[in-house]
Amino acid sequence: MRIRVLGSAAGGGFPQWNCACPNCSAVRAGSSRFSPRTQDSIAVGSDEGSWVLLNASPDVLHQIERAPALQPREGRKTPIRGIVLTNGDLDHCLGLLMLRESTPLVLYATKTVYQGLWEQNVFFRTLERFQGHVRFVPLEIGSRVSVFDGVSIEPFALAGKVPKHLEGRAAASPEDNVGLIVRDDRSRATAVYAGAAAMTIGLEAALNGASALFFDGTFWSSDELIRLGLGTSRAEDMAHLPIGGEGGSLAALGALSGVRKVFTHVNNTNPILDSESPERGAVERAGWEVATDGMELVL
Amino acid sequence: MRIRVLGSAAGGGFPQWNCACPNCSAVRAGSSRFSPRTQDSIAVGSDEGSWVLLNASPDVLHQIERAPALQPREGRKTPIRGIVLTNGDLDHCLGLLMLRESTPLVLYATKTVYQGLWEQNVFFRTLERFQGHVRFVPLEIGSRVSVFDGVSIEPFALAGKVPKHLEGRAAASPEDNVGLIVRDDRSRATAVYAGAAAMTIGLEAALNGASALFFDGTFWSSDELIRLGLGTSRAEDMAHLPIGGEGGSLAALGALSGVRKVFTHVNNTNPILDSESPERGAVERAGWEVATDGMELVL
Repeated sequence: MRIRVLGSAAGGGFPQWNCACPNCSAVRAGSSRFSPRTQDSIAVGSDEGSWVLLNASPDVLHQIERAPALQPREGRKTPIRGIVLTNGDLDHCLGLLMLRESTPLVLYATKTVYQGLWEQNVFFRTLERFQGHVRFVPLEIGSRVSVFDGVSIEPFALAGKVPKHLEGRAAASPEDNVGLIVRDDRSRATAVYAGAAAMTIGLEAALNGASALFFDGTFWSSDELIRLGLGTSRAEDMAHLPIGGEGGSLAALGALSGVRKVFTHVNNTNPILDSESPERGAVERAGWEVATDGMELVL
Repeated sequence: MRIRVLGSAAGGGFPQWNCACPNCSAVRAGSSRFSPRTQDSIAVGSDEGSWVLLNASPDVLHQIERAPALQPREGRKTPIRGIVLTNGDLDHCLGLLMLRESTPLVLYATKTVYQGLWEQNVFFRTLERFQGHVRFVPLEIGSRVSVFDGVSIEPFALAGKVPKHLEGRAAASPEDNVGLIVRDDRSRATAVYAGAAAMTIGLEAALNGASALFFDGTFWSSDELIRLGLGTSRAEDMAHLPIGGEGGSLAALGALSGVRKVFTHVNNTNPILDSESPERGAVERAGWEVATDGMELVL
């Protein structure tokens, strides 16, 4: 299977529209130490030309236009067969509403995530233009679902929160945030996508035998937003495990070997975005890569 | 005042993600006869550096990153003071949800449009993170509202439809679709924005004394989608006045002189997108321009 990183930034992207922090200013100025990044999404495809998107970011139209494999060859025949949602956050779901031009799609999500979208937002009626416009396939934790050509996905529960817009309206559920195990039955390769996540027992089990891991690289430090004067929440308050520090992901996943380890969903404030920062150096010395838009893996 | 075309395509943009029609294929192949276009939106600004967006398209983040004047200079101080909505269509409103990173904004819309968003979609709670996050200023047809530095807007009713996702749920109202008269009290210039519209008496009155008109350029012909096998609706069924033909806008607005006349909101199927087409020639001979992304006017 082929894996293409469509977007490698956290919600808001990099640079972020309302931000002139040192990172955002440097990337706007064209510094060679920084690359612009769109919002978190990954495409999984086969040599036969079938693709599914893992999350539909607000940048999805631009992501498709930068990826010839995702563009239609004739008429209105898209190679995109379906979309898998890992949670109901706006930066993972808004793109669905941009894929509304009457192409039938399959949507994979937990019932909790699906209901938070369809039952709470009249916008989604735009994806009900005809019978079968969007076919919903419920994801159940621990159950494998085939998406195309021998490739399957299996969700596992991740620690997380309900989306900001559902706070106070919905009880927390293990179905709110899932990671995905993506398996190719032909190559026998497995990739794990846990783009916005804290560590969980489910993740450790999912990593067993995996060839690649895409992991939450939102923040370097727990108090990153607080120190920059951009917020009052710690990384953990937003259900993100920071990369650095004693309890961070570099330490927690230090023993993991034989796996391609990639940080993605990187926030605009994260010092690992600077290719010459000490933090980027630490990440690379520990055997990790930092995802960039357009990065491709064949597994 | 300064007017910058942020996006000049109809909903879906150009090229459109699921389309390989001759226009979309040619622009993807890099043909010099075609320019890519993002979805319809216009920014109005002052020399002092205040801006409002007329509509917030799904491409708004990319549109801001291509327009240095719309980017913050320090901290999180955006020069974007507010957003004006002309209807509740997804291609005019989805961008609002991408401008959610805790910057206070003023939203100008009719009550009908506002209610169709806020009361029907829980997503908009993301714009209620703190008291005063989004301040709603109701637009009333025929009433002028100051937006900044001597610049005001006045809505007028346009023929139109309720958004697709509200069909069957809301009665038609003159507040569903408005055009905007944008006045600069200092330069005494007036621009009229009627990006997705049929002709109305309101439009004729609005054009009195205007220096520039941005008008609906969605379709060249009434049966454009039908002939291409891409749909069953005529332009008029979708509340668009075609450009060509006996009752088209070229004929209807033929007598208009002394005004800069610009077609925008151009659909991916429209032959005027091809700089060498006979239809583009006809438009230009009649004194019209076809908007491109990034086009700027100083009025």
